[in-house]
Amino acid sequence: MKIILDAMGGDNAPGEIVKGAVLAASEYGINTVLVGRENVILEHLSKIPEYAKIKDKIEIQNADDIIEMGEDPFSIMRAKKESSAAVAMRLLKDGSGDAFVGAGSTGAMVIGASMIVRTIPKIRRGAIATVLPFEKPLLLIDSGANVNVTPEYLEQFAAMGSVYMNKIFGIEKPRVGLLNNGAEECKGTEVLVETHKLLKGSDLNFVGNVEARDITFGVCDVLVCDGFSGNIVLKYSEGMAKFFSKKLKGLFLANVFTKISALIVKKQIAELKKSFDASEYGGAPILGISKPVIKAHGSSDAQAIKNALRQAKAFVETGVIDDICEYTNKRYQKNEAVINE
Amino acid sequence: MKIILDAMGGDNAPGEIVKGAVLAASEYGINTVLVGRENVILEHLSKIPEYAKIKDKIEIQNADDIIEMGEDPFSIMRAKKESSAAVAMRLLKDGSGDAFVGAGSTGAMVIGASMIVRTIPKIRRGAIATVLPFEKPLLLIDSGANVNVTPEYLEQFAAMGSVYMNKIFGIEKPRVGLLNNGAEECKGTEVLVETHKLLKGSDLNFVGNVEARDITFGVCDVLVCDGFSGNIVLKYSEGMAKFFSKKLKGLFLANVFTKISALIVKKQIAELKKSFDASEYGGAPILGISKPVIKAHGSSDAQAIKNALRQAKAFVETGVIDDICEYTNKRYQKNEAVINE
Repeated sequence: MKIILDAMGGDNAPGEIVKGAVLAASEYGINTVLVGRENVILEHLSKIPEYAKIKDKIEIQNADDIIEMGEDPFSIMRAKKESSAAVAMRLLKDGSGDAFVGAGSTGAMVIGASMIVRTIPKIRRGAIATVLPFEKPLLLIDSGANVNVTPEYLEQFAAMGSVYMNKIFGIEKPRVGLLNNGAEECKGTEVLVETHKLLKGSDLNFVGNVEARDITFGVCDVLVCDGFSGNIVLKYSEGMAKFFSKKLKGLFLANVFTKISALIVKKQIAELKKSFDASEYGGAPILGISKPVIKAHGSSDAQAIKNALRQAKAFVETGVIDDICEYTNKRYQKNEAVINE
Repeated sequence: MKIILDAMGGDNAPGEIVKGAVLAASEYGINTVLVGRENVILEHLSKIPEYAKIKDKIEIQNADDIIEMGEDPFSIMRAKKESSAAVAMRLLKDGSGDAFVGAGSTGAMVIGASMIVRTIPKIRRGAIATVLPFEKPLLLIDSGANVNVTPEYLEQFAAMGSVYMNKIFGIEKPRVGLLNNGAEECKGTEVLVETHKLLKGSDLNFVGNVEARDITFGVCDVLVCDGFSGNIVLKYSEGMAKFFSKKLKGLFLANVFTKISALIVKKQIAELKKSFDASEYGGAPILGISKPVIKAHGSSDAQAIKNALRQAKAFVETGVIDDICEYTNKRYQKNEAVINE
């Protein structure tokens, strides 16, 4: 197995990305193809002492261009055809690697994955699936790719999310919730009312609408929503966690006694912070693509990249994509059978 | 001045509601009209020792019916015409009071306010405006009334929110942000792209799109969004605050030393919790209605009701509604002038 890694994407590229590849090779024996400016990558690799020991596990594929953050994501198809992300996507499509990991522009990755690697037959749209680190891990799908959705998209997100939580987290029948502004079936937009019906009639373990106040309390394993709402939930989680961290810090800085108190609970605070650190779960897969594509957080350091590479390996090994194909075959065959009746 | 209070609405009605009216009369000299089952209200009042001293400040208006939580909100117009909420709305419309406060069904209050009390001329929809208690108070509008919106609705929400933050919080030129999934003008749904243009061309102090990760950090005073997104932000704030509280508690319960540590920071923790307590700001006004209507939290106790009554008084005294009318006159006159040019 070989994982393609965009060496130039992310806030800490290429230094931390390259280091992450070396860590993944040393700790898990993972083979990677680093895509980006060859001389820059080699320079960074040469500075890492462990590199010499795992040299044969790392290949380099040159790509001269880089997609900058904030650039038009469609540039991956046009102006930035020779960027590291575009070259990496083509390598994945051609079978030169089994999965792709990147920490660069989310938009470009979604477009590249959908238009170069392509979606699974019958799957309408790729969706970003992010694990939120609450009491139990919760998969938020779509967490940002599709602002406009149809009930069919959402039903597919639900099915793909269920497969992922089953295969990667070992949950037998993942509970699927629909993010909504009330528990009643009639709640939300027309699209949500229709989606509720579809999910209720499906083979999924649908637990109904989920209100935002219950997200943190483990009421479902897969939370389905459009990419706009998902973006709000994801980003607000980050913002709130930062806000509480800051408040907590302020609490202990009040006076000399509270500072002593902080020393006593130091270990517990570190654990609390770690429990909010989404990078523990690696990156966010873009589900619905015909090959594994994982979006690592833009601020990923070497550890986070290592985790994302390990996750990509698990994604390939567990056969998530085979199961999604099985779902579409069954779902759309069944539909056609009904039509033929 | 007299404030109409739905004595039967909310999780703690009528006991805490009635008590809240007595507190508001004792502390601020506020006159109220309690609407609900007269004998039940009198029974509760008779048990409150302070009542005897402020008896003349409280009127009772009988209403036999109650709108239960989860009931069809349109029942306020039909099946539940004799409910406390419906009777209260008619009293407000008729001028038997200057403002209305209720802790019952939000949906019924929005419909009752819009259809019985009526919206301000030219204002398309009433919107719930909730203050989020972050570093600086932030007004979230619409936080739940309108799932479907147009750019015009959102522009009006922005203007009404600005008036409110100016009049009630004394902010000279409230900074208006548009909740979106990215900073760029092209981000979000078509409605949001169009709204961005409208706000940019308006007289408001528009600071652009605001991503959910920045909500907690005081980047704007008024955050504009549709009622679905607003519901997510509002409810998720509650859920996250509860989650962090629980985690914080767990942190200090780890062992005997951490328990001692908890005693040291007890005061600071209480302050932290208080800073997340939205009831400090009273209730959420439904802006755009021709008379002041305030939705108190469903779980309001007597203190929260007292705060909501104080807030209703401020709402009346500061002339928020006059300023909104002034805005519509100017905005739509200007528009018509442009058309006539």
